[in-house]
Amino acid sequence: MGINGFSTLSETTGKVITCKAAVARGPGQPLVMEEIRVDTPQKMEVRIKILFTSICHTDLSAWQGENEAQQVYPRILGHEAVGVVESVGEGVVDMKEGDHVVPIFNGECGDCAYCKSQKTNLCDKFRVNPFKSVMLNDGKCRFSTKEGEPIFHFLNTSTFSEYTVLDSACVVKIDSKAPLKNMTLLSCGVSTGLGAAWNTANVQAGSTVAVFGLGAVGLAVVEGARARGASKIIGVDLNDNKQVKGQAMGITHFLNPKDFGIPVHEVCLSTITYQSTCILSLFLWSLSHGNQDHELRKIKEMTQGGVDYSFECAGNLDVLRDAFLSTHDEDACTMARESKMITSGWGLTVVLGVHPTPRMLPLHPMELFDGRRIVASVFGDFKGKTQLPHFVRECMQGGVKLEEFISHELPFSKINEAFQLLIDGKSLRCLLHL
Amino acid sequence: MGINGFSTLSETTGKVITCKAAVARGPGQPLVMEEIRVDTPQKMEVRIKILFTSICHTDLSAWQGENEAQQVYPRILGHEAVGVVESVGEGVVDMKEGDHVVPIFNGECGDCAYCKSQKTNLCDKFRVNPFKSVMLNDGKCRFSTKEGEPIFHFLNTSTFSEYTVLDSACVVKIDSKAPLKNMTLLSCGVSTGLGAAWNTANVQAGSTVAVFGLGAVGLAVVEGARARGASKIIGVDLNDNKQVKGQAMGITHFLNPKDFGIPVHEVCLSTITYQSTCILSLFLWSLSHGNQDHELRKIKEMTQGGVDYSFECAGNLDVLRDAFLSTHDEDACTMARESKMITSGWGLTVVLGVHPTPRMLPLHPMELFDGRRIVASVFGDFKGKTQLPHFVRECMQGGVKLEEFISHELPFSKINEAFQLLIDGKSLRCLLHL
Repeated sequence: MGINGFSTLSETTGKVITCKAAVARGPGQPLVMEEIRVDTPQKMEVRIKILFTSICHTDLSAWQGENEAQQVYPRILGHEAVGVVESVGEGVVDMKEGDHVVPIFNGECGDCAYCKSQKTNLCDKFRVNPFKSVMLNDGKCRFSTKEGEPIFHFLNTSTFSEYTVLDSACVVKIDSKAPLKNMTLLSCGVSTGLGAAWNTANVQAGSTVAVFGLGAVGLAVVEGARARGASKIIGVDLNDNKQVKGQAMGITHFLNPKDFGIPVHEVCLSTITYQSTCILSLFLWSLSHGNQDHELRKIKEMTQGGVDYSFECAGNLDVLRDAFLSTHDEDACTMARESKMITSGWGLTVVLGVHPTPRMLPLHPMELFDGRRIVASVFGDFKGKTQLPHFVRECMQGGVKLEEFISHELPFSKINEAFQLLIDGKSLRCLLHL
Repeated sequence: MGINGFSTLSETTGKVITCKAAVARGPGQPLVMEEIRVDTPQKMEVRIKILFTSICHTDLSAWQGENEAQQVYPRILGHEAVGVVESVGEGVVDMKEGDHVVPIFNGECGDCAYCKSQKTNLCDKFRVNPFKSVMLNDGKCRFSTKEGEPIFHFLNTSTFSEYTVLDSACVVKIDSKAPLKNMTLLSCGVSTGLGAAWNTANVQAGSTVAVFGLGAVGLAVVEGARARGASKIIGVDLNDNKQVKGQAMGITHFLNPKDFGIPVHEVCLSTITYQSTCILSLFLWSLSHGNQDHELRKIKEMTQGGVDYSFECAGNLDVLRDAFLSTHDEDACTMARESKMITSGWGLTVVLGVHPTPRMLPLHPMELFDGRRIVASVFGDFKGKTQLPHFVRECMQGGVKLEEFISHELPFSKINEAFQLLIDGKSLRCLLHL
């Protein structure tokens, strides 16, 4: 027996492994638990035994096959997991059999211009790509059915399988003493949200934060802001049930836009009619509509003019505009009284939601001049292989409450039940035991 | 005689001054050189004698009265100047009679939450505001005709007058040894462009830069990038005549979009049709249109994928989109070959142009995820009173070539001729001697 009671696995090295996987065979069809064959890892690839995996909304939308380009079948989904290295391919020197690892959908080859730049965490070769379905080495699959039919990969990871093969750029070795269950969360949701607070926004102690959308990513932002010592963390969600969990994670205030009269987007969008010059119209608009009784006004009251940082975790453009307008800015009424024109602020809005929409950004170019900034963040701006091991150690020291994110646990065989929990909005993360 | 040969001016202290000013009396009407009365400065106000002034495009658009809210007459325009303090009002302790000063349209009171924050240079009370036309103290004018008719203020400054009154928050004391003529440029254009390169973008030595629009602000960006040691500075302008001046200021390459076939905006905007999900459409769009033979492709070729920093100095949304797309990003063809999806970059686009348009930002929300950022910058992110004196010293040490910006010099009486030079695109800055 090897480390932590796992077999050293060496008996499978160099051989095709037959194991169970949950295979997607059509859009929205229940995953089928099948016996599959997993090839040996090729050059710079790693084969890992998955110990725990969980389901994120990206798996859900891929499973539902929302657009044709995603409809590649049969395919093994899944990208949040923790595992142990079974064997490594030629050239892999940073991992060995038995190492505990976290797969990452947003890889880091370490060699490309992007990886060498400190300005991006999007690798030239292994960045997040929902359309990639084969290995980069040879354009082929490492999975197949017992009959030899190829089974396609997903998001560089494919973790809904007892064994999977990944490029080593998409595997992060973590401290062997890290609690394995919780580490699953670092594959995606928690790293994405917490990293957005720490790396993208660099939330400071004493600052004010608004989080729009309290799913796992939004709650991870909350956790990151709490850990950094934010003085106010305002959670905004259309679902009142999110309040309790939000408070457990660290929100200091909860707002449901439904409690504030007219829908926010009707105020924010439909009334923007730029008739003369943009500046004049923005001014007139701010007088007539900038100060309605909705949750933005509440946020501004609570924070003397708006939050320092806002996070859009809903994937909705109207929410994105609300998030932008919720950052620090002068009160529109004050502006009117003093006949001032250009608003002033210093907020940063971080976009985390995916926006499958034909609409462009609902922001006017002159609105960029008021001192508020907007950026998006992928994988929390973490460079996975370089920075995640340190993040793991920070989690181990207790600074981050990971266990709160696991709302359910089920055996791997009940993966379709876990999908339903997510669809029904009942689970935050359902951990599947393999 | 006082400092530098100027009268100590004390004989006028406490009295109304009668002097000449160029008064705007209607949209687009020639300015009228009139004898006017300039009141004494009130609490926290300063009266200064203007020595040199110049004309910026903001004066031009105000003079043309492009929208009704700007049509406030009679009014004294002008905001780029250098002068000497004639007298100060109650409470002003940081300046005294005889001090050399630069007026700033974007003031700094030093006391408000905005001034105390390091995150903005937009003062709560004295930020840029083209609609403000009276003094904050009493809502009245300090200028009047000989008949006692009030003459309105402009942009906190009104420098087209031999004497003007400003809030002390809008007056910066500079080194008495600074060359006065050149300091005029620091009131607006040069600070705006150079500050965008230094403060907003923080251009690094060895980095690559593209500047869209080579007016005074664009050339100031060029100068800032050159002073910082940028390795490539690509100037983009529709006017070939800008090439010579651009090269004198530091551009290493000049591109005229007219030389690259189809208009860029036709490629960039009209063909964005998001039909399924945005990601898929963006992908298909990038395959079919991302790589046309236009100046963007040329920029990407010249810089191995795009520039580190781009600056939009044209006030045109199509140019804004070009500037955004010119920053570092993977080649669309490479993406297609490798069937990758999300592009990756690290560029920063700084918006400096004013956009009087009903259109919203021509950027799709998912385009924010490729690592490229976009921000706007007002007055080069300089806090005027705090930071301009240091900038003046840097200019005095020769690090910045201010003299190149002065293309013409005329007596104050020929101000309408100077306006025409700007309208005709013949002058960069025409310095008026008072």
